Amino acid sequence: MSQDFYAKHQATLDKAIEVTRTREFWSPYPEMPSGKVYGEDAAEQGEAAFKARLNQPFKVEMPGIVGEVGEEVSPYGFDLGIRYPKVDPDTLVPAMTESLKAWRDAGPEQRAGVCAEILERLNKRSFEMAHAVMHTTGQAFMMAFQAGGTHAQDRGLEAVAYALEAQTRTVGEAHWVKPQGKRDPLEMDKRFRVVPRGLALMIGVSTFPTWNGYPGLFASLATGNPVIVKPHPHTVLPLAITVEVCQEVLREAGFDPWVVSMVVDTREAPVTKELALREEVGVIDFTGSSEFGEWLERNCHHAQVYTEKAGVNAVVIDSTDNLKGMVQNLAFSLSLYSGQMCTTPQDIFVPRDGIETDQGHLSFDEVAEAIADGVRKFLSDNDRATAVLGAIQAPVTADRIDEAVKLGEVVLASERREHPQFENARIRTPLVLKVDAADEDKYSRELFGPISMVIATDSTADSIERARRLAKAKGAITWGVYSADESVLDQMEEAALDANVALSINLTSGVYVNQTAAFSDYHATGGNPAANACLCDAAFVANRFRVVEMRRHAA
Amino acid sequence: MSQDFYAKHQATLDKAIEVTRTREFWSPYPEMPSGKVYGEDAAEQGEAAFKARLNQPFKVEMPGIVGEVGEEVSPYGFDLGIRYPKVDPDTLVPAMTESLKAWRDAGPEQRAGVCAEILERLNKRSFEMAHAVMHTTGQAFMMAFQAGGTHAQDRGLEAVAYALEAQTRTVGEAHWVKPQGKRDPLEMDKRFRVVPRGLALMIGVSTFPTWNGYPGLFASLATGNPVIVKPHPHTVLPLAITVEVCQEVLREAGFDPWVVSMVVDTREAPVTKELALREEVGVIDFTGSSEFGEWLERNCHHAQVYTEKAGVNAVVIDSTDNLKGMVQNLAFSLSLYSGQMCTTPQDIFVPRDGIETDQGHLSFDEVAEAIADGVRKFLSDNDRATAVLGAIQAPVTADRIDEAVKLGEVVLASERREHPQFENARIRTPLVLKVDAADEDKYSRELFGPISMVIATDSTADSIERARRLAKAKGAITWGVYSADESVLDQMEEAALDANVALSINLTSGVYVNQTAAFSDYHATGGNPAANACLCDAAFVANRFRVVEMRRHAA
Repeated sequence: MSQDFYAKHQATLDKAIEVTRTREFWSPYPEMPSGKVYGEDAAEQGEAAFKARLNQPFKVEMPGIVGEVGEEVSPYGFDLGIRYPKVDPDTLVPAMTESLKAWRDAGPEQRAGVCAEILERLNKRSFEMAHAVMHTTGQAFMMAFQAGGTHAQDRGLEAVAYALEAQTRTVGEAHWVKPQGKRDPLEMDKRFRVVPRGLALMIGVSTFPTWNGYPGLFASLATGNPVIVKPHPHTVLPLAITVEVCQEVLREAGFDPWVVSMVVDTREAPVTKELALREEVGVIDFTGSSEFGEWLERNCHHAQVYTEKAGVNAVVIDSTDNLKGMVQNLAFSLSLYSGQMCTTPQDIFVPRDGIETDQGHLSFDEVAEAIADGVRKFLSDNDRATAVLGAIQAPVTADRIDEAVKLGEVVLASERREHPQFENARIRTPLVLKVDAADEDKYSRELFGPISMVIATDSTADSIERARRLAKAKGAITWGVYSADESVLDQMEEAALDANVALSINLTSGVYVNQTAAFSDYHATGGNPAANACLCDAAFVANRFRVVEMRRHAA
Repeated sequence: MSQDFYAKHQATLDKAIEVTRTREFWSPYPEMPSGKVYGEDAAEQGEAAFKARLNQPFKVEMPGIVGEVGEEVSPYGFDLGIRYPKVDPDTLVPAMTESLKAWRDAGPEQRAGVCAEILERLNKRSFEMAHAVMHTTGQAFMMAFQAGGTHAQDRGLEAVAYALEAQTRTVGEAHWVKPQGKRDPLEMDKRFRVVPRGLALMIGVSTFPTWNGYPGLFASLATGNPVIVKPHPHTVLPLAITVEVCQEVLREAGFDPWVVSMVVDTREAPVTKELALREEVGVIDFTGSSEFGEWLERNCHHAQVYTEKAGVNAVVIDSTDNLKGMVQNLAFSLSLYSGQMCTTPQDIFVPRDGIETDQGHLSFDEVAEAIADGVRKFLSDNDRATAVLGAIQAPVTADRIDEAVKLGEVVLASERREHPQFENARIRTPLVLKVDAADEDKYSRELFGPISMVIATDSTADSIERARRLAKAKGAITWGVYSADESVLDQMEEAALDANVALSINLTSGVYVNQTAAFSDYHATGGNPAANACLCDAAFVANRFRVVEMRRHAA
C-alpha cells in the first residue's frame, strides 16, 4: 500500500468510536458552507465542478461496461443529461468476487483507514456534492450541503467506527492453556479471521441518497464486503461522485477500484431484484418503499437485509407552557424539505376538547389554526421559504398533495411557489388537514410529502394509544410530544418504549423532531415496521462479517 | 430486590467479558465431577435428586396450566414417567407480556446478576443435571456432566457477558452541546433506554438441550426478553430443571417467576409452529433439523430467528508426521457420543493414491483401515467404550446406521454393545464406509449419528475443493485437516475462510475437532447453511434488544 491511511486517520477513528459511546456532540466535517473552512474558492469551484458534469459521460472503472444510461431531471427544472456506464452484472459480479480476497485480507484497520480517507475527500467536495444532491433530490442548497454532504459524511464515519470496533473487539491470535491437574496442560494456538459476508448491495433512495446510503455503504465496505452501489435511477449523481472518490482512494491504496462499483438502471428496466437475488450478494441495504423492502426481506434469505421503509410519524399535543415556541418548532419541521423526510411528522394528535397553554385554553380548532398560521408566517418570505422547502423530488409526490385534500378539512392549503433562481422548480408548501380520530383509514398510512393532519381525539390518553398502535402496526421513526405534565410525558415514554420509537419532548427551539445528529442520536430503532435496523448501532454492523477460527496444538 | 445479584457476580461478569476478548482459557464452573469441588455428598445427592423426579409431576409456576404431559424414555432403557404441566399459550403469553415491563425496567446489570445467580445455582446442581441429560440424550455420564452441565453453564455465562457488554456499551444519559458560533449553543438532555424485542422462544434439541439451549436462553433473558422454553418432547427434564432454577432466582429477585416459562408438547400434538407465529414473540432460537429451521427463517419475519441446522463436517487428510496421533485423535472424535454431535466429522477426504506419513506411504485403503482399526482398538474395552459412546438418543438414528451400510464398502461395521449398568441401553459403535468422490449423493447430506465415510479423491486439491463446495451448499460447523505441508494448510485455510468453517489443524493429542471451549472457541460461524449464527459472538446478542432515545432541551 502506497500510503498508510489507517495511521493517517487513527486519531479520528478512535475519537469517532469514543463519541458513539458517550453520545456527545462531535463532527470532523464542518457543516457550514463557509469559505473560511473550505477555502474561499470552494463554493465557486464546487458549482463549476457540478456544471462540468452536465450533459457528459460519467466515468466509473469496472469490468463489464456495455453502454450508457441516465435519465436524471433536476426538480428545479432541467435535464442533467449525464450518461452513466451501463454494466453487465454477469461480468461485474464475478470480477468483484475475485477482488474480495485482497480487500478481506487488508484487515479491519487498513479498511477503516481507506474509508476515512474516502470520507475526508468527500468532505472536501461538499460544495460539488451539495449541487449534485440539490439537483437530484430537490433539497435546498443549505440542506443539500449538510444532509447530503457533511452530515452524510458523519453517518458514514459513524458506521466505519462501529465496524472497526466490532472487528477488533476480539484478539486476532490467542494462546490457550487449559490446566490438566498433574498432567501437562493442553495448549493451543488459535487465530481468528474476520471475513465478509460476500458482496454488498446498497440500494439508494431518491431523496437522501448519501445520508441514508452511507451507513450501509461504509459499514459493508469497512467489514470487507465489496459494494455494488445501485442508485435510484432519478438520483444517481450524488452516489456516482461517491463511487468516483471511493475508486480513487482504493486505486491509490492498491486495491481494484471496482471493490466499489455502480450499477445504474432505468425505471423502465430495473435490475435491483436480479442483483439482490444473486447468491454472491451477502448484504443488502435498502431505503425506500415498504413494498420493495418487504420483498427483499422475504425473498433474499441468502443475504443480511437492512431496510428502512415507510412509517407514520406522530406528534401528541397535550399541553404546553410555550405555545409560540411549539408552533414555530412544528412549522419548521413541517416545512423542511417540504415534508419529504422519513422523520417528518404526519399525524398530530390533539384532544377534541382542546389544550391548556401559557396563553390560556385553546380549542382543537384553535390549535389546528395556530399550527397552520405558524407555517403560513414562517413561509411568508418567499426567499426564506424556498431556502427551506427545496423542491418536490418526484411528480408523484406533488400529485399526492392534490389527492390528499379529499381526506379532511383543509386548514392550510398547499401553495405553488416560484424559485428566485430556477423558473421551473417544483415547489409546494405544506398541506394541513383536520380529521377525526374515528376516521383511521385517513391518517393511518404514510402520505409521503408535505401532508399533515391534525387529528381530534377523545383525550391525550387516546392520542397516545392511537400513536402507539399506529407505530406498532405501520411503523414510525420519530415521535414528538408536548405536555407540561410530567405524568403525561411518562405515559408517552412508556408508549415509545413499547412501540420502539425515538421520542422528542417539548421541542420549542433550534432542534427539530425530524433532525438527528450522528454519533449522538439514533435514526430509527429497528424495532417497528418503519425499519428493521437502526442507523447506526452495533447491531447494524455485527452481522456484516463473520469470524473464522483456525486452531492447532501449540508448538 | 431482596438481593443485589449484580454486585454479587460483578467480578465474574467482568472477567467473562474480558476473556471473550482475549479468548484465553477460563471457566468459573469446574468440569471435573469431583467431591473435593462439589462436596463429598454431591454425587450421591445429585443421583438421588434425579431419581426422586421419576414418575412424579414436575412443578413449574405459570398462568394457564391446564393439564399434564410427558413421554420421556431414557436411551438407557426405561421410562422416566415425569409429568410436566401442559399450559394454554393463550393465557401464558399475555401474562408473560405483562411481566415483560418489570424485567425490562430492571436494566442490564440487574438482569445479568440474576442470570449469573441462576448459572451458579445450576452449577451446584451439575450432578443432578448430569443424570437428567444422560437419561434423555443418551450421553455418557462424564459427558453429560460436562457438556450438559458445566460447559453449558460456561456457554450461558458467555452469552450473558456479551449481552451485558452490548447493552452497556453506550451511556444511558448524555448532555449534548452543539456550538452555534456566536449564538448560544444548542443543548439537549438525552436518555437511551434498552428495550427487549418481545418474548423469546427457545426451541430445545433432543441431544444437547442445555449446551445448545443456554446461549439463546441467557442471551434473550439478559437482554430483557421473557423466555418461553420449548423443549424437545423427548428431552424435557434438563430444561425443566433449568426453568425451575430460573424461576427460583426470579422469584427471590422480586420478578414474576414465569418470566421464564416452559411449554411442553408431544410428538403427536406439536405446538412449536403456533408459538413461533405469535406476534408477541420477538426472538426465536432453534437447534435441530434444516427443514424446521428453514421454516422458521422463512415464516417468522416478525422475529429475530437464530438457527443451528444440519451440516456435513469434513476432514481432509493430505499427509501426517504423526500417523498414530492422527488415528487416535480421529478414533476418539468418531466415537464420542456415537457421532451424535453437530461437530462430528462425517466425510473424511483422502487422495485415492494414498498419503505420506511418518511411517511411510499409505495407500487409500490403508488409511481407511488405519482409521477403522483405531476406532476398533479404542473401543476394545467395553467399559471405556460405553463411557465414551453413551447411548443412541433416538431409535431413528439407530435405524439410519443400518440403512447407511448400503452407501459404500464397510470398513468398520457398527456393533451393538451392552452397558455394564443398564441392560436395555441403545448403544452402537461407529460405522465407517469407503466411497468414491464421484458418488456425491452418498456423502453430500448429513447422516446424523455414528456414520462416517472415507472418500477417495483425485488429490488433496480435489479434497479441499469438494469440502469447500459441500460446506457452502450444505453447511459445516467443523473441519479438520492433516498435512505436513504448510502450503496445503494455507489452501485449506483459504477454503475455510471462503466457506466460513472453523478449522482444526493437525490435531493429534487431547483436543478434538468436535469439541469447543466457551470464551475461546466459536461454535459455528453463522456463515454457511449449518447455522445462521455463531455461539456466541457479539452478533448473537446485538439484535435481541433495541435502544429507544428520549431527548429534550436541557433545563
